[in-house]
Amino acid sequence: MDFRDLVAAKRDGAALSDEDIRTFVLAFSRGEVPDHLAAAFLMAAFIRGLDANETLALTSAMVESGASLALKGVSRPKVDKHSTGGVADGVTLVFAPMAASLGLAVAKLSGRGLGHTGGTLDKLESIPGLRTDLSSDEFERQVDRIGLAVAAQSGELVPADGALYALRDATATVPSIPLIAASVMSKKLAVGSDLILLDVKAGSGAFMKTPEDAEALAEACIHLSGRWERKARAAVTDMSQPLGDAVGNALEVAEAVAVLRGERGGRLTELALEFGTVAQQALLGVGEADAQARAQETLSSGEAAEAFRSMVESQGGNPSVVDD
Amino acid sequence: MDFRDLVAAKRDGAALSDEDIRTFVLAFSRGEVPDHLAAAFLMAAFIRGLDANETLALTSAMVESGASLALKGVSRPKVDKHSTGGVADGVTLVFAPMAASLGLAVAKLSGRGLGHTGGTLDKLESIPGLRTDLSSDEFERQVDRIGLAVAAQSGELVPADGALYALRDATATVPSIPLIAASVMSKKLAVGSDLILLDVKAGSGAFMKTPEDAEALAEACIHLSGRWERKARAAVTDMSQPLGDAVGNALEVAEAVAVLRGERGGRLTELALEFGTVAQQALLGVGEADAQARAQETLSSGEAAEAFRSMVESQGGNPSVVDD
Repeated sequence: MDFRDLVAAKRDGAALSDEDIRTFVLAFSRGEVPDHLAAAFLMAAFIRGLDANETLALTSAMVESGASLALKGVSRPKVDKHSTGGVADGVTLVFAPMAASLGLAVAKLSGRGLGHTGGTLDKLESIPGLRTDLSSDEFERQVDRIGLAVAAQSGELVPADGALYALRDATATVPSIPLIAASVMSKKLAVGSDLILLDVKAGSGAFMKTPEDAEALAEACIHLSGRWERKARAAVTDMSQPLGDAVGNALEVAEAVAVLRGERGGRLTELALEFGTVAQQALLGVGEADAQARAQETLSSGEAAEAFRSMVESQGGNPSVVDD
Repeated sequence: MDFRDLVAAKRDGAALSDEDIRTFVLAFSRGEVPDHLAAAFLMAAFIRGLDANETLALTSAMVESGASLALKGVSRPKVDKHSTGGVADGVTLVFAPMAASLGLAVAKLSGRGLGHTGGTLDKLESIPGLRTDLSSDEFERQVDRIGLAVAAQSGELVPADGALYALRDATATVPSIPLIAASVMSKKLAVGSDLILLDVKAGSGAFMKTPEDAEALAEACIHLSGRWERKARAAVTDMSQPLGDAVGNALEVAEAVAVLRGERGGRLTELALEFGTVAQQALLGVGEADAQARAQETLSSGEAAEAFRSMVESQGGNPSVVDD
């Protein structure tokens, strides 16, 4: 197959077949498609769009490009959480310990921060001693034992995404809903979670400038989950103002700890509680009012703070961060 | 300037400023724009289009990317002829000697054939001994002395075109009217001709599949000439059938010689006569009927065949090709 024919078809607005997209993406991931041709494809896909089937084929091929992490050794119901738009706020630091306290497991593989804000990894690594370079085995055993782990995504998982993202960044093809949905969901679907929670950002600081675009991105992601027979829920949040008050990795950890200890409220707390509630409804069949109460109780009882302490200790960090 | 912003603007359908296009093209020509970003630009330009001002800016920047050949040493009125669509037929081999016999000068720089058909250079080089690698000085002196020369375009002329064309060929962005017009006309405008004659091909074997597209390409090229204050005329010809009967470089030369000796008619002859007529009207102020008669006479009198013989001899080829 001459991949230029495939690019010409997308250029002219045709819908590509699953097999064509799969062949192209896997060849690109193996380094067999030159960057200039992949760049032309990305620009054609950006302008002409990808329909739901093409987006699914792209996502699935990206998952297929690398290893997967089935998490078969984890017995609890598994929930993953992702903040779309390339910016990590402190929600994961609150939600993951909360979910662990609720009997769920959070196996969170995270990327580095893009642009000017730190990612979840950067925030955690501000804790003295804490390691995020867990092996797959370490990661899975920790998740099974204490219900949560946050580690750096290895290059073995979805390698096509890293290569495609770098090319999109270099060719003005980042802010496309199907391309973002495929990037986000390929990394989530490569990990064997039962439920995927998405925090889709809208606003001047996010890729999606309007609530309408953010809703469309959320829909695209949820559709992909459904086609993979995974549960997914999304919240669209306004990123015109930061969720928390703190800025700076260490300060954001301190703020998350204060929320975990039930010492402060605000929008960060509310979003973590919303995700904690939704996760129980979706995975444990708990009614909304009970789920809300139980989520709140993990904070007021100190259980969530203890779960965070367990994770910090297990990953080699200084647990006194929870006491300060 | 971050060229990604320029690519994003074209991606979103904006019209780019002259200065932005000029800066981008000259930087690309100096190797300062990575191929993947240039490929994204080409695909965005292909899909969104370039308006007349953008096409002019692109063309002018391509000319500016290299040397020009002013032909100030040639005293006769100068006419250039180009067949668009990447395919050369035998018309140049007939028209150039005819024009020289009419008191005009044809300084024809030619590229190699693209794809399955030979270019004018390939046809000429089937003549034993004939050189097409003339220096600029040799070329200009020959044109002044005998009124015609056909030589290989040097890499110093419009280097941006060679680089852009190779990238378009590799990224499924060839058949775009503004990009083709800029490519064709940059090479013509870099040479100091007074009149540019365009043979725009339409049909299944050409880049332009329909007469409408071919007319649009002709219009775009003529518009560019006008903005550069050059005269231009175009004929749209059907390429569904070959212009001549012969296939193969040596046979096509033999066919052209037969036409030059007035021994055969057909569509190749008619098109050469049409161009010979138009050139006299535009450059010598001769009326149509007289111009037609004089053009015809260059064939029947043997003058055109003699002009061809002079060129072959001057470029080191065996002149007996005219006698066979």
